[in-house]
Amino acid sequence: MSKPAYITDQDILKKITPADAIRITKQAFVDYEAKRNKMPEKIYLDLPEYNGDFRAMPAYVPRYNIAGIKWVNSHKENPALGLPSVMATLLINNPKTGELIAMMDATALTCLRTGAVGAIATELLTKIENPNIAFIGCGKQAEYQLKCIQEVKKINHINVYDRSNNQSEIFAKNIKHNLGELRIRESVKAACQTANIIITTTPGTKAIVMKDDIPERCLIIAIGADAEGKQELDHSIIMDATLIVDDITQASHSGELNTAITLKKIKRNNISATLGDLLSGKKITDNNRIVVDSTGLAIQDLALAGFYLSKV
Amino acid sequence: MSKPAYITDQDILKKITPADAIRITKQAFVDYEAKRNKMPEKIYLDLPEYNGDFRAMPAYVPRYNIAGIKWVNSHKENPALGLPSVMATLLINNPKTGELIAMMDATALTCLRTGAVGAIATELLTKIENPNIAFIGCGKQAEYQLKCIQEVKKINHINVYDRSNNQSEIFAKNIKHNLGELRIRESVKAACQTANIIITTTPGTKAIVMKDDIPERCLIIAIGADAEGKQELDHSIIMDATLIVDDITQASHSGELNTAITLKKIKRNNISATLGDLLSGKKITDNNRIVVDSTGLAIQDLALAGFYLSKV
Repeated sequence: MSKPAYITDQDILKKITPADAIRITKQAFVDYEAKRNKMPEKIYLDLPEYNGDFRAMPAYVPRYNIAGIKWVNSHKENPALGLPSVMATLLINNPKTGELIAMMDATALTCLRTGAVGAIATELLTKIENPNIAFIGCGKQAEYQLKCIQEVKKINHINVYDRSNNQSEIFAKNIKHNLGELRIRESVKAACQTANIIITTTPGTKAIVMKDDIPERCLIIAIGADAEGKQELDHSIIMDATLIVDDITQASHSGELNTAITLKKIKRNNISATLGDLLSGKKITDNNRIVVDSTGLAIQDLALAGFYLSKV
Repeated sequence: MSKPAYITDQDILKKITPADAIRITKQAFVDYEAKRNKMPEKIYLDLPEYNGDFRAMPAYVPRYNIAGIKWVNSHKENPALGLPSVMATLLINNPKTGELIAMMDATALTCLRTGAVGAIATELLTKIENPNIAFIGCGKQAEYQLKCIQEVKKINHINVYDRSNNQSEIFAKNIKHNLGELRIRESVKAACQTANIIITTTPGTKAIVMKDDIPERCLIIAIGADAEGKQELDHSIIMDATLIVDDITQASHSGELNTAITLKKIKRNNISATLGDLLSGKKITDNNRIVVDSTGLAIQDLALAGFYLSKV
């Protein structure tokens, strides 16, 4: 077999804008809700000896006539080694024959499609014109959340908190904020208290955001928890919020809701809707507090990859 | 990230001999039995609309300090299109950081490691010096079974049967048989009746080998069944044979034994031993008929890939 095309992060960033990522991700959620995509449950290769894991995420996306798999790691100690925590590769195949069509760096793709979810949640679930946003965790994911949300809202004010002050400063430097004011805060509470939207992108297994830290009314977009045992929000926040997820099964097993469900603080049927439901027209009753649990779906990755291939 | 090395089937075949494949596969089975390797259960992306599927097979092999995943398809209609039914790609990562080390064609690797299992089973389970072998199914897998078994036994006589006579003739041409006599047979029974070893490598979901087709005493190496619902041997053959598997869980879910277990013809605890058990010294009681259920393990693929990388 001849060597298949290898597509780099730079190739992806040249061809897929945040606006593209939002549009294609919406389409993928709607297609998934309508059962037009296939996505078996992802599996984990746990390597506690390295404080890390790998995930295998296969999917079939007929809209772009591709099947494939994302293979992605999560290694908490990487930033100290000068490496991203999360790095990903995609293999893309012809679904009819199984032939390999392309191999792809999927690190940038993962940032884009995760950022797109933040933007979609913001568009669907906040009526405020110029929201204040708090970022808890200031790594690459936070940067892409901001890039994508700027596509759908003009942001008034940004507060950021990271346990590493250095990381907060890198974030502040990296983003081009023709978007009002940005302040680095010393605590979660100081970052969150005036926020309309709170975006959490931390990798821990213990709640970092407490009920006292946040305003009565806010939209929380929880990105960080993506494996069993991971958690960012105190259960008391989840217990009286309207709960929106990207995928019910995945959120229950490995998303922000997983520990609350395991400990029976909430049940799966406390989940109000998926993003696909909302995009397909489902309405939810108004609530002061909404939590969006984004776990990351292989159909998002494959759809963006298919979009890329359709453009080149 | 710079483009990682891409290793082709030709590279693999230049550096890994059948004898290497046998030695490394033995080591992998023993390491797995001793719980030194990790291998989550493989997952399937089923595409019945294309009469095919994909499997995601992750593993961690500390002996070679690699983690990774094999992504492999199985599409029954491919031979009619001039393509192999089974094509595979391996991604190989640093387990400590998750960085991608190499990408690899794994189609040849899959043939080699599957052939190695036939050789290991033959070495462990047949005392006959110069066996007669019957091949039921004459594709690429059969070819590699023969190549590897020749490393451990001098073969007396080969009978082959394939539903496509043309395929039998290709097989006969491809193999260099300085190994006694080869005959193409018109039926499974004609191929099997004088066989000491019967090797099945067909992709079907209905028994192709019946109890009446085979001698009282023989070793059957069942390679073809590798997904739920697949089957090559009539259940009556399995019900009174000594059962050896590569992995108990995988054999029960997706190997030759899966339909017999689902229909309660046998139970998981009817399995006498794994190949790793036997290689680690476990003895089994003598029985006229032994069935070896080879499903194919990701640890085999990763171990061979690690061996390759250690040589270059």
